[in-house]
Amino acid sequence: MSQSESVTAAVLVIGDEILSGRTQDTNTNYIAKFLGALGIDLREARVVPDVEEEIVAALNALRARFTYVFTTGGIGPTHDDITADAVARAFGVGIDYHPEALAMLAARFANPADFNEMRKRMARIPFTAALVKNSASVAPGFHIGNVFVMAGVPMIMRAMLEDIAPTLKRGAIVHSATVQARIAEGRIAAGLAAIQRDFPELAIGSYPFYREDGFGVQLVARGRDAAKVETAAGAIEMLVRAEGAEPTRV
Amino acid sequence: MSQSESVTAAVLVIGDEILSGRTQDTNTNYIAKFLGALGIDLREARVVPDVEEEIVAALNALRARFTYVFTTGGIGPTHDDITADAVARAFGVGIDYHPEALAMLAARFANPADFNEMRKRMARIPFTAALVKNSASVAPGFHIGNVFVMAGVPMIMRAMLEDIAPTLKRGAIVHSATVQARIAEGRIAAGLAAIQRDFPELAIGSYPFYREDGFGVQLVARGRDAAKVETAAGAIEMLVRAEGAEPTRV
Repeated sequence: MSQSESVTAAVLVIGDEILSGRTQDTNTNYIAKFLGALGIDLREARVVPDVEEEIVAALNALRARFTYVFTTGGIGPTHDDITADAVARAFGVGIDYHPEALAMLAARFANPADFNEMRKRMARIPFTAALVKNSASVAPGFHIGNVFVMAGVPMIMRAMLEDIAPTLKRGAIVHSATVQARIAEGRIAAGLAAIQRDFPELAIGSYPFYREDGFGVQLVARGRDAAKVETAAGAIEMLVRAEGAEPTRV
Repeated sequence: MSQSESVTAAVLVIGDEILSGRTQDTNTNYIAKFLGALGIDLREARVVPDVEEEIVAALNALRARFTYVFTTGGIGPTHDDITADAVARAFGVGIDYHPEALAMLAARFANPADFNEMRKRMARIPFTAALVKNSASVAPGFHIGNVFVMAGVPMIMRAMLEDIAPTLKRGAIVHSATVQARIAEGRIAAGLAAIQRDFPELAIGSYPFYREDGFGVQLVARGRDAAKVETAAGAIEMLVRAEGAEPTRV
């Protein structure tokens, strides 16, 4: 697969609760791994507050640059759920109750009075968007242009990704191999740089760690050519041994 | 404190390992809470890969908009650590070995031969920047303009924040109160919107959860006026009770 065919993505996390520190975002990490398994490269992630202009600006910046944008958060029934309106504005389209979404939500309530105005907000979908259904909630996400709008609740977001996955273009899978060693990264940094030069089509990363049982480093080779990843990992193991440490694959 | 005096911040996480899903970022959440305790509002977070142009573009966008920018990652000794060069380019300044940083690092190695060229990379600091020392590592971060450049390893990043904190402008602390209830958010959404209208200076958020022991919602009032936060939380408790559920403070 040539560079020009690579499939890329960005994540846009929408929510004051992430920026206040109240909530640890885990959706970005989940989406990164999920897309990775489809050969789609996550290239950027942003977190913006529940402010319409901020959402619009970030969405327009990201959707112009990447194959896909995945948003999380802000599609519930409460006043602070403003993602659908912001997405409509970003695309310059109107927004109204979507008949199918209304019907899906209405079916959830035995007593029609329980399907109140605020709950109906969850059926407001930008014009031209298609619904993203899911197994975890009757409230849908939606898909407009190259943007997928998903819930912030991880369980629901994950179910939506399952609905979305079959519709996505896929790229070649990125393979990776990780060599761990109880060695300071400064000891093997020059050798590692040489390995990076030998394998320009791979990304060679070095990630030190500090744990109760001591420090060390994880050396990661990533790339679309599995054989080259394996060859580079072998070279990293030799480098570690040459410095007197024992490499382990993790 | 008037709106114009608010102290704002952005986080820029630099690292392929976050975007590949290999590593769950926890630094943003830690920084959010750390700054919150100083009355500094985290307004945006971005994750970019180890690509110089991406780092430069994101840094220049963020430093123009917020009081402070905090970066994490990319200041180690290996070839993939390119943050210092990117920051120098973003500021349009040169970069070279910083005498004090060199001395700090050199003192760490009993055998001068161990202070190799790659390790010396950690002493390359953009011109006009000041060092950010820390108790966890002899390798410094640095501070240039309104940007603080920190390590990606959480233990070291946290130590650097301690060094930085006394130098930061502080804002009025944001207080928050959280009311939890075993109720669908759609039931209290209209009442919650009314409370938001009654307290325009507060941010009223609604965060549903789904756990093994059942679902519910956390309703959060946040703002700089502690008395108003408490009054709003009381109104939220009344709203929950009026819908037949029992509120608890969490």
